[in-house]
Amino acid sequence: MIEPLARLIDVLERLPGLGRRSAERIALRLARDRSHVLTDELIAVLTEFRNRVVECRLCGGVTIIEANPCAMCTDPRRDPRILCVVEDPADIVAIETSGAFTGRYHALLGRLSAVRGEGRRHIRAEELFRRIEIEHIDEVVIALDTDAESEATARWLAEQLATQRVRTTRIACGLPVGSGIAYSDPQTLEQAIRRRVPL
Amino acid sequence: MIEPLARLIDVLERLPGLGRRSAERIALRLARDRSHVLTDELIAVLTEFRNRVVECRLCGGVTIIEANPCAMCTDPRRDPRILCVVEDPADIVAIETSGAFTGRYHALLGRLSAVRGEGRRHIRAEELFRRIEIEHIDEVVIALDTDAESEATARWLAEQLATQRVRTTRIACGLPVGSGIAYSDPQTLEQAIRRRVPL
Repeated sequence: MIEPLARLIDVLERLPGLGRRSAERIALRLARDRSHVLTDELIAVLTEFRNRVVECRLCGGVTIIEANPCAMCTDPRRDPRILCVVEDPADIVAIETSGAFTGRYHALLGRLSAVRGEGRRHIRAEELFRRIEIEHIDEVVIALDTDAESEATARWLAEQLATQRVRTTRIACGLPVGSGIAYSDPQTLEQAIRRRVPL
Repeated sequence: MIEPLARLIDVLERLPGLGRRSAERIALRLARDRSHVLTDELIAVLTEFRNRVVECRLCGGVTIIEANPCAMCTDPRRDPRILCVVEDPADIVAIETSGAFTGRYHALLGRLSAVRGEGRRHIRAEELFRRIEIEHIDEVVIALDTDAESEATARWLAEQLATQRVRTTRIACGLPVGSGIAYSDPQTLEQAIRRRVPL
């Protein structure tokens, strides 16, 4: 295979969710476009993205360089006393899409990992504790993933927050809406049963 | 959502195989990388790709601007008398990966489509007929997809080639290797039974 195509495939393959085959398919689709319309657009949006998108200095989410802190952190309609703690900006997007949260966010941009040797300095934890004090936060909603490392991070955070004058909650764990019991994995079912609620 | 992120997602979503969710996931992965390593690499490979990759003037496959006709068209170890007709450069890559073909290729870069009003001028058919004469081709192997439009294109090609002094074959249609009969679609099974071979 020609080298510029092979190199493009190699880089595309490193994007999340793309395997070898899907990277090849994308590269060959771009190659087929003789007028380069899509490739040029892709280069243009990536360049704009690279030059303008930065981390919000307050929540750790994404924002543009001209608006830092981000629009969500400065939105007066959002409840300033409730903070939702997530791992990544992607989690913020998912929760916003649900429409169920009207407070503000705090992205840790990582999680504790004994395996990778990543402790409290690797996550934006001190920033969180500082915000809780300065912004007089009433409630911290922990919205981390449910795998082992995220669970450990959530437990550690809860311990730390127990010493602060703030209510700590966690988003519910259980059966996904629309899913079938027979197709659920045992861990999810175990959590769903243990955390059952009165009807 | 901030505008440079939304625009990146919109363009990523137009790539084959990427839906809204996977485009979001890629964009947010790029956003999380504070040092922009991956974004910069992506811009660099796309730019090189855009500036150096061109269509091979003989086979219609992809090549670099400094090597046109492409390395496959000029490879003396490849059988110059047998041409494999495909739709896209992606098909060439797939067939090369199989290792089963040692001749040369001809990409139509399209197919006949009554719906889109795309006739013989939309595909590299005249180029194929010219090559068959000039290159003294003995056999044309038709390797098009098996949906309705590609089938129609294959039939039309076979008719045209019937008037030329060239053997026309078509790659076999049947059960994919490793697949189960119970899980095969009726059309594939029908073809597999009709095209059965003696053992």
